[in-house]
Amino acid sequence: MEKIKLGPKAVYPYPMPMALVGATVDKKPNFLAVAWLSRVNMTPPIMAVSLGRKSYTLPAIEKNGVFSICFPGIDLMEEADFCGIYSGLETDKSNLFNIFFGQLEAAPMIKECPLCMECKLVQTIELQTNNLYLGEIVAAYAEERFMTGGKLDISKMNAFVLTMPDNNYWKVGHHMGKAWDMGRHLFG
Amino acid sequence: MEKIKLGPKAVYPYPMPMALVGATVDKKPNFLAVAWLSRVNMTPPIMAVSLGRKSYTLPAIEKNGVFSICFPGIDLMEEADFCGIYSGLETDKSNLFNIFFGQLEAAPMIKECPLCMECKLVQTIELQTNNLYLGEIVAAYAEERFMTGGKLDISKMNAFVLTMPDNNYWKVGHHMGKAWDMGRHLFG
Repeated sequence: MEKIKLGPKAVYPYPMPMALVGATVDKKPNFLAVAWLSRVNMTPPIMAVSLGRKSYTLPAIEKNGVFSICFPGIDLMEEADFCGIYSGLETDKSNLFNIFFGQLEAAPMIKECPLCMECKLVQTIELQTNNLYLGEIVAAYAEERFMTGGKLDISKMNAFVLTMPDNNYWKVGHHMGKAWDMGRHLFG
Repeated sequence: MEKIKLGPKAVYPYPMPMALVGATVDKKPNFLAVAWLSRVNMTPPIMAVSLGRKSYTLPAIEKNGVFSICFPGIDLMEEADFCGIYSGLETDKSNLFNIFFGQLEAAPMIKECPLCMECKLVQTIELQTNNLYLGEIVAAYAEERFMTGGKLDISKMNAFVLTMPDNNYWKVGHHMGKAWDMGRHLFG
């Protein structure tokens, strides 16, 4: 079938993780929804998060030099969505979640989330409309109820993904195969 | 429940997109599996992909100044996994897929993939064990069979996600809600 060329300016749909990036802004915990993020270095462990240049949280991350990344389960989908709709500039999000702290004073984390990371800012890359923040993971936090055999269990985490520009949330569905394994036999 | 502190060196499970990054290496198309990638800038559209420093494809991307990102559907999961297991150094992957090219000569793309992007390298960020390549999307390509009403349809794309370190592939599952909408009523 013929390939259709799409414009370079659109947002293209593929499944993205949905996370809440936390920072202390004006002495209060604030969270914004971020789907443009990825692990970017193996050792030390570094995550990259891309924030629009006008984000309310942006100056605080730069000033504090720390931020958090929490991954919500489906039970927190509405709250996570709320954090993506309303800016901290107009909405106090400090009471949306139960907060805890790890080693970094200004990196508030969300008790209800199955996985939280506290990150130390190690590099800022200024792009045209976004800033890319590279944060080294200082520690991560989970709970027994999200684990199986001492390890985080994606099914118990009740994870979901986001696609844009259709703007939909999707449950992480059926298990389809083992990675770094199921393709081993091909052309072997 | 008590938070359990996890070490900073582990890989933590959350759903990641799985893509095939393509480049022309020694005059042949080569593809490697990459889950550490994200959109990082809105305008112009820029994607970031993180590759281990020892990746076979790495010098070619730097030399050519271009690369591609293709998102496979579930029907290509084994081939995608194969590309993640075997290095181009030892395995010729040039016949795994049907190849097409867009505007960039050294950015081979995969006909079978529902979504392909050709990218021009705009920035390289050298980290400790990985290089982060920022590529501006020059154009993206799809096919009618993956679209509904002229737009890419994630269900027809048959998308899947990867989790590590458990190393599993998961289907993108049930629709759970509308993004930038379902949280609107909270505390409104």
